[in-house]
Amino acid sequence: MKVQKFSVSDAKMIKSPGQDAEIYVGNLVDERNGGPVTIGYGRYAPDQSLTETMEVDDTMIVLEGRLSVSTSDGTATAGPGDIVYMPKGQAVTIMTEGEGALTAFVTYPHWAEAHKG
Amino acid sequence: MKVQKFSVSDAKMIKSPGQDAEIYVGNLVDERNGGPVTIGYGRYAPDQSLTETMEVDDTMIVLEGRLSVSTSDGTATAGPGDIVYMPKGQAVTIMTEGEGALTAFVTYPHWAEAHKG
Repeated sequence: MKVQKFSVSDAKMIKSPGQDAEIYVGNLVDERNGGPVTIGYGRYAPDQSLTETMEVDDTMIVLEGRLSVSTSDGTATAGPGDIVYMPKGQAVTIMTEGEGALTAFVTYPHWAEAHKG
Repeated sequence: MKVQKFSVSDAKMIKSPGQDAEIYVGNLVDERNGGPVTIGYGRYAPDQSLTETMEVDDTMIVLEGRLSVSTSDGTATAGPGDIVYMPKGQAVTIMTEGEGALTAFVTYPHWAEAHKG
């Protein structure tokens, strides 16, 4: 694959699978491209909550808005420019309040393949 | 490793090795943490240029400012919220003009280990 530049308008956002919240994900690079990572954007509506055990290593960069990430160790709040690293095997709850959030993410390996099991 | 949240103020920025431009890099997660990816922030002063052949898969998210990425196929300009994916083996020139840029990056595998060869 060649060098590519993406903007959020390039992503086709779909409801994040396996959950009911208003959380959307749009992959730009994934297993279909032959590389090791999945890259995309995520969009969280206000007042949403998602609890999951990470199936892959997921690095999330907050671009707009604000979200909190809770684990058994406590809660961290992330805003624009902040990075949240969620290693495989960790249990997390991601929540938004009034603002919602736009994120970019990189997973290793591909989250969709891991999710299918 | 556990879930972690980082801000740019958490990164200790050092001159990006193997080049002379005013380009700085600060790893937050790397080979010392036992995971598969290196995560950090990059800071590019205005009017800098860096040419390299990618030793790892590098995903760069522009947080502030603007930079251009040139390959044999042409040049793309990226601003806040844009993602640039630079796969291993690709030759790229990253340039800033008057603004400089702040980026977040995720590499697979660890760039410092690949750089040492």
